[in-house]
Amino acid sequence: MRNNFSSQVIYRDQLDLSFADRDKDLLILDRALESKWKDVIENWRFVYKVDAGEQLKELIAASSHIQKMCELWGNAAHRSSRVIVAGGGSVGDFGGFFASVLKRGVRLVHVPTTWLAAIDSAHGGKTALNVGEIKNQLGTFYPADQVYIFKNVLFELPQERAIDGFGEAFKIFLLWEPAFLDQLFQKSVNDLRDLIWQHLEALVSTKYDIVIRDPYEQSGVRKKLNLGHTFGHALEAATGEPHGLCVLQGLIFALRWSIVKKDLPQSVFDSCLSFINKCKIPIWEEQTQHYRFSATELKSLLLADKKALDGQEVDFIFLRNVGQDVAEKVPVDAIVAEARRQNWLKD
Amino acid sequence: MRNNFSSQVIYRDQLDLSFADRDKDLLILDRALESKWKDVIENWRFVYKVDAGEQLKELIAASSHIQKMCELWGNAAHRSSRVIVAGGGSVGDFGGFFASVLKRGVRLVHVPTTWLAAIDSAHGGKTALNVGEIKNQLGTFYPADQVYIFKNVLFELPQERAIDGFGEAFKIFLLWEPAFLDQLFQKSVNDLRDLIWQHLEALVSTKYDIVIRDPYEQSGVRKKLNLGHTFGHALEAATGEPHGLCVLQGLIFALRWSIVKKDLPQSVFDSCLSFINKCKIPIWEEQTQHYRFSATELKSLLLADKKALDGQEVDFIFLRNVGQDVAEKVPVDAIVAEARRQNWLKD
Repeated sequence: MRNNFSSQVIYRDQLDLSFADRDKDLLILDRALESKWKDVIENWRFVYKVDAGEQLKELIAASSHIQKMCELWGNAAHRSSRVIVAGGGSVGDFGGFFASVLKRGVRLVHVPTTWLAAIDSAHGGKTALNVGEIKNQLGTFYPADQVYIFKNVLFELPQERAIDGFGEAFKIFLLWEPAFLDQLFQKSVNDLRDLIWQHLEALVSTKYDIVIRDPYEQSGVRKKLNLGHTFGHALEAATGEPHGLCVLQGLIFALRWSIVKKDLPQSVFDSCLSFINKCKIPIWEEQTQHYRFSATELKSLLLADKKALDGQEVDFIFLRNVGQDVAEKVPVDAIVAEARRQNWLKD
Repeated sequence: MRNNFSSQVIYRDQLDLSFADRDKDLLILDRALESKWKDVIENWRFVYKVDAGEQLKELIAASSHIQKMCELWGNAAHRSSRVIVAGGGSVGDFGGFFASVLKRGVRLVHVPTTWLAAIDSAHGGKTALNVGEIKNQLGTFYPADQVYIFKNVLFELPQERAIDGFGEAFKIFLLWEPAFLDQLFQKSVNDLRDLIWQHLEALVSTKYDIVIRDPYEQSGVRKKLNLGHTFGHALEAATGEPHGLCVLQGLIFALRWSIVKKDLPQSVFDSCLSFINKCKIPIWEEQTQHYRFSATELKSLLLADKKALDGQEVDFIFLRNVGQDVAEKVPVDAIVAEARRQNWLKD
């Protein structure tokens, strides 16, 4: 356990793991990178490859991996040993959890290899496993010592992966200063990846600013990072669509509701939507055919989400304006009613 | 995660769990207490019974229990929910681990039901699981909010269980002030349980004094609590004898070695041994037939212990005098040689 939640973040143009000790460190690697990273992992003594995805985080499967990693590396490891986790969100959640519990915590380095992980999940110290249908039911708070972000790794990903990252990026933009978002809205967007990369360092440091004020989610400050996630998680659970896309839909849902509940200016909403369009992000509600919930389905998904408070209310983050978030406990039924108003229900 | 490692410790004469919310709290209970605690657990909504012992802490078995507890209680639980763990060391290690990872940490109350747990393992925030042969290979630092200690629960245990608790108690005495130990040595000892109960609050607060100076075992202060444990763990792993008894043997081993290496006065050693005799604790080395290691066996047990540093050296705590501990890295071979000198080897 470390109390320093402000991980050192290192930005590099080219993949370079020369900081690692290939005789001593354990590399947990997304298997999808294996062939591309052939040279990188050559002569590495302890490499554990995993298949990315939520099934990796499932408790019983994860325990079996943990046992194997202990057999591979446990005897060679001490509390000052280092686990290097290279992958996206699921690999990071899983690998971070392992590092946090091995010998009650060894050193941890994240190498996020997706936009989503580079923008969001590698930062802030949340690790997670799933139990049954409930995502992230188990976990620890365990910040990485370092996070290495390599530009070429992210730019080699298919363009859609940047779209997936955009959801969490846009969330941070909304929590930030209005002046910045106004400037951003003026910009032309040729390549979404360039846009995100240009702002990555600022996005990441904004997240750390929030996290270090409330590392263990006790004071409530950190709650604002759930903007867009209450509805987004329900959508993700129902459709299996990528997290970032669902969060973006959740943000739009929260913005629309905020107009009604918190007098968020309609003009802010319109600017956001036109910017999202300029970025060529396909948002569902502009399509005539998209996923719609049954009321009972949405209700049970909202209740299953771990942010449910007493079985009937959940925390919901509204915006009065850009940079002015308001956390409020709302009845689950009110969310369902709002979803109906926003045409998200089929019944 | 809490940073407050100084749990609130409550001493009561009679078992009384009326502080608990029987509709909301999860009670993890050592199954051996089930019939005796029949009235206590009556009308308790969420009770999860476990068989105590190291097998409970084995990763794969523990994961299966964690899954079941999530199914039983997970949907009803929130971060402010409370896990109450009633049992000895193994149940406490396991239940504390669960509380520390459920929803990244819920509230935790320990109700230690053995002398060993009441004196030592319920305090200080160490939780643990085992992987394969290696004890406590996984775990978290997660102090309880409260520790409730009930006199009648401890006094109803067979007398031998107090003997088992004596090892950790005597360790604390040795790390404490010499004046106290001198006084203690003058006392007559009719019932070991009375002796321990009289000093329990002081023993426990001495442990907290050490723990809060180094909660995550980073500065080295907390290392002194390993006094007697390096050799004790090896003995425990080899024989399966109770932890406290093995630690007591480990303390004697450390004291003897300290005479040679750190000029610990022979008179201190003699007083300790005669006090142990006065307490009627059966120590092995006074028996002609007792367990002896082979040299290779002892070496591999010492290396497997998680305090091994680089595969050849381990931390060893010596005493210059009562209250004057010295941590030193020593080669495993030196411990084996000392074990030979102390007649602990059969080859």
